[in-house]
Amino acid sequence: MSAKPSKRVLIVGGVAGGATAAARLRRLDEFADIVLFERGPDIAFANCGLPYHIGGEIPRREDLLVQTVGAMRARFNLDIRTRHEVVAIEPAARRVTVRDLEADRQYTESYDYLLLAPGAAPIRPPLPGVDLPQVCTLRNLPDTDRIKALVDRGAGSAVVVGAGFIGLEMAENLRRRGLQVTVVELLPQVLPPFDPEMVVPIYEQLTGQGIDVRLNQAVTAFAEQDGRLRVELRDGQSIPADLAILAVGVRPDTDLARAAGLKLNERGAIVVDEHMRTSDLHIFAVGDAVEVRDAVLDEPTMLPLAGPANRQARIAADNICGRPSRFRGVQGTAIVRVFDTVAACTGASAKRLRQRGAAFDYVYVRPKSHAGYYPGAQPMTIKLLYRCDDGRVLGAQIVGGEGVDKRIDVLAVAIQAGLTACDLEQLELAYAPQFGSAKDPLNIAGFVAANKLRGDVRSIEADQVDEQVLAGHHVIDVRNPEELRKFGSIPGADNIPLPLLREQVGRIGKDKPLLVTCQAGQRGYYACRLLGQLGFDCTNLGGGYATYAQACKARELAGGGDRA
Amino acid sequence: MSAKPSKRVLIVGGVAGGATAAARLRRLDEFADIVLFERGPDIAFANCGLPYHIGGEIPRREDLLVQTVGAMRARFNLDIRTRHEVVAIEPAARRVTVRDLEADRQYTESYDYLLLAPGAAPIRPPLPGVDLPQVCTLRNLPDTDRIKALVDRGAGSAVVVGAGFIGLEMAENLRRRGLQVTVVELLPQVLPPFDPEMVVPIYEQLTGQGIDVRLNQAVTAFAEQDGRLRVELRDGQSIPADLAILAVGVRPDTDLARAAGLKLNERGAIVVDEHMRTSDLHIFAVGDAVEVRDAVLDEPTMLPLAGPANRQARIAADNICGRPSRFRGVQGTAIVRVFDTVAACTGASAKRLRQRGAAFDYVYVRPKSHAGYYPGAQPMTIKLLYRCDDGRVLGAQIVGGEGVDKRIDVLAVAIQAGLTACDLEQLELAYAPQFGSAKDPLNIAGFVAANKLRGDVRSIEADQVDEQVLAGHHVIDVRNPEELRKFGSIPGADNIPLPLLREQVGRIGKDKPLLVTCQAGQRGYYACRLLGQLGFDCTNLGGGYATYAQACKARELAGGGDRA
Repeated sequence: MSAKPSKRVLIVGGVAGGATAAARLRRLDEFADIVLFERGPDIAFANCGLPYHIGGEIPRREDLLVQTVGAMRARFNLDIRTRHEVVAIEPAARRVTVRDLEADRQYTESYDYLLLAPGAAPIRPPLPGVDLPQVCTLRNLPDTDRIKALVDRGAGSAVVVGAGFIGLEMAENLRRRGLQVTVVELLPQVLPPFDPEMVVPIYEQLTGQGIDVRLNQAVTAFAEQDGRLRVELRDGQSIPADLAILAVGVRPDTDLARAAGLKLNERGAIVVDEHMRTSDLHIFAVGDAVEVRDAVLDEPTMLPLAGPANRQARIAADNICGRPSRFRGVQGTAIVRVFDTVAACTGASAKRLRQRGAAFDYVYVRPKSHAGYYPGAQPMTIKLLYRCDDGRVLGAQIVGGEGVDKRIDVLAVAIQAGLTACDLEQLELAYAPQFGSAKDPLNIAGFVAANKLRGDVRSIEADQVDEQVLAGHHVIDVRNPEELRKFGSIPGADNIPLPLLREQVGRIGKDKPLLVTCQAGQRGYYACRLLGQLGFDCTNLGGGYATYAQACKARELAGGGDRA
Repeated sequence: MSAKPSKRVLIVGGVAGGATAAARLRRLDEFADIVLFERGPDIAFANCGLPYHIGGEIPRREDLLVQTVGAMRARFNLDIRTRHEVVAIEPAARRVTVRDLEADRQYTESYDYLLLAPGAAPIRPPLPGVDLPQVCTLRNLPDTDRIKALVDRGAGSAVVVGAGFIGLEMAENLRRRGLQVTVVELLPQVLPPFDPEMVVPIYEQLTGQGIDVRLNQAVTAFAEQDGRLRVELRDGQSIPADLAILAVGVRPDTDLARAAGLKLNERGAIVVDEHMRTSDLHIFAVGDAVEVRDAVLDEPTMLPLAGPANRQARIAADNICGRPSRFRGVQGTAIVRVFDTVAACTGASAKRLRQRGAAFDYVYVRPKSHAGYYPGAQPMTIKLLYRCDDGRVLGAQIVGGEGVDKRIDVLAVAIQAGLTACDLEQLELAYAPQFGSAKDPLNIAGFVAANKLRGDVRSIEADQVDEQVLAGHHVIDVRNPEELRKFGSIPGADNIPLPLLREQVGRIGKDKPLLVTCQAGQRGYYACRLLGQLGFDCTNLGGGYATYAQACKARELAGGGDRA
């Protein structure tokens, strides 16, 4: 045990990536000197649990401490130094300068390998008043304590700036604590990684829970007034609040790497190869601070999520120990629960694919989470995106309740494995009435996409239908009349319920092409198959009226602009 | 609409396969004549829901009727004839003889294509008394009505013969209705598709719910005594009961196909090609009555499940309409909920791989369903089986609660796509604390398998450890002493908690190879990495003490033989 160490590895940052790398390094090399520096007081805390401690679902603060310094040290024989900040790197000398934040002194340490896991810091836009004490960000336990203290002391209202994952998790948790919550988002939609029509149910869930959601809106300043915060908006309105949460994104925390001369991308992320090695042979980097490969779009990206950070850490440790394992890149799998609604995505969105000029297509399906005859089945909407030529799955978004997490994970693997929409037809998934259907939602997504790929049905997807499309078509709605009354319908639509279609087909003219719609798209497809074989020029409204209504709402929200 | 039909297709059987094929045929060909014959009174009923109607979770009988004759007829323009039985096929003449069971008359119908979806019938072993009215099988709605009537009229006890999926679903539902339930199973385990050690928690769940489970046991006769049933067992005991359910498996219902001279396999299943075509060019067959390809073992098999039946039906319809789509075979994905415990499997079990002499290996992991810091996480046990040479995933079994269905579906797709255990390391699955972990259970399964494949740790899996193995090893248990007291331990094990291992390593002798154990296998792996690098000859107990205890229990149940 007192032999000369095999190598000396210094790790900067002790949350997801740093702690995982340290443990993996020790398992691979019992004889390495491993020193972990963490600026904050804690290591390996449950970053993704912070909002739920504030909201009360995770009542005990200590539950957020996944690993304590003592336990990690004992288990993995690590030299862990919390409240120690690495303030400079000298790559040529393989040496770092460390500041002991408690003792307020500096010292140097040399290394054979340096592993950077500094993470990303919440962006604080340079707005007047942004440094007021009630304007918070959420990154670590001290931030959490600060926000929780404000709430515990009776804060009555909050403004959340940014409607991304963390913004919505904070909005939900503050609302659960009884606060009046306003969410301010620059874009015309919540959850920017999603396509806008898909997250309308999330918007509606938020507003239904009494949260005031302001889209197409910006905060211009924070001010203090009578001991409270006043949040000024671009439209001239202001919102009084007891606290504000800034959740407008993160930026890589890479000043140290920059000063050391490591190669960064234009957004400041550390550039690494597939072994997680930086531009310096002896320095590796992982986690929210690095640029990674988007495995679907085959381009560089940044994805500040815990899962990839952990896997990168493992790979960096492997390579430091001479094992050439590779990181395969990311596909952006993510999920969020917003009250009772769940939204999940993987791969590329239509927005991003359009920006890239990709030749892609997509379908919507709206199946139930499990067999309809068994109690408790919940509806979900799946948007499946795939390549036009070979049907390869490029991305998916799912919004619903039960079973959303399952389907997004299956599609995540399908993307990793390069499966096509036609392969989804033949998925053999587990079926018992509590868990799925004999035709699983993903089989159905495969059927619908394959039908379109093979040309069995022509389809205009719900978000592609505008007034011009409607003007060019005769709209046939094949739902039952009760459904039109209950859910609404496209103005001017001709209602011929599917069971009556064969007998009433004589009254449909052939002067205009037909746009056939039902509630979710399935009956419209049946009707199109029928009408097409009878010689009609017909197109199905993909996703049906339900998705069309969502798309209309998304357009309305986008067109709304600033509130007067 | 009155044009000459394009073709005439007759379908025998109107449940999963028949009804799906009819609908698909109509979508592909508006001009075909499609006649569906169903011997029973209903079509397209929810086969898999029947036990839950008896148990009360699906209170309304009509909810089991997924499609009614009227709705199917109107939507798809089908000629549906319930209570009509096809009693003979003349392949050369392309003609069938049909018996109208209500009118008690016979007639013939000719076809261009015949599609057989006769299903499988519950096996009724030729035992004395098997035809007594209280001895039931469960296949259709009349069977369900009969059993439910017996329960509704106050049956106080039941014997379920067979501990497969249907047997256990019936046992649970009868127990929920308050009956005393005994399950009699010939094999030394419940759920025969699983490996025995994996389903010990299901056995314990059943017995914990007050169900008397008799393994290694057989029913030899049924008798009536004072108006009740007496079920005689091989060991001489007898069980009084108000009803018995025979759930000992099914046999293909193929007398009709046999009489027509179609090629059957030795177990009576109809042999079809990958287009679902039988030995007769004009006759297709789908569902529980056909032999299919096991896609993992690449050998013929039979898999009476609804999901494959539905997909086969679609493919048969395609081929009848000139589209050469292919069925890729089955991998045996299945799931069952038994009270609060869920058991799911996909691909091959160790039992089957051993029978085939395959070069495979496997690991156990025991992760939580979601992040431990978020409330409600439930443990699960995963057994992952893979090929020795390249790590390709061959099968998986998972037992737990929440999230079992998700992980088995992901692994089902991984098998379909030909992924390896090492690919599982890099799965990018959806993580938020309610749904998973930064290192998902399947990432962990991948890590553990990859560690073994790469030789980073030597491991004896929990079910491979017997007295001989123990005698050859010095057992080091690295759990904390409280865990040994709480869960038990291997006799003679030396307890050195992992955090103390480095300082106490001096007291471990090198005379014997070490077998290192912890609770679930992870800490044992850490210890093995440490000890191995210090020069010890050590092996981890894969799956840890928890899995070892299950394996011991499985062996005890297997060795128990008949109860005296």
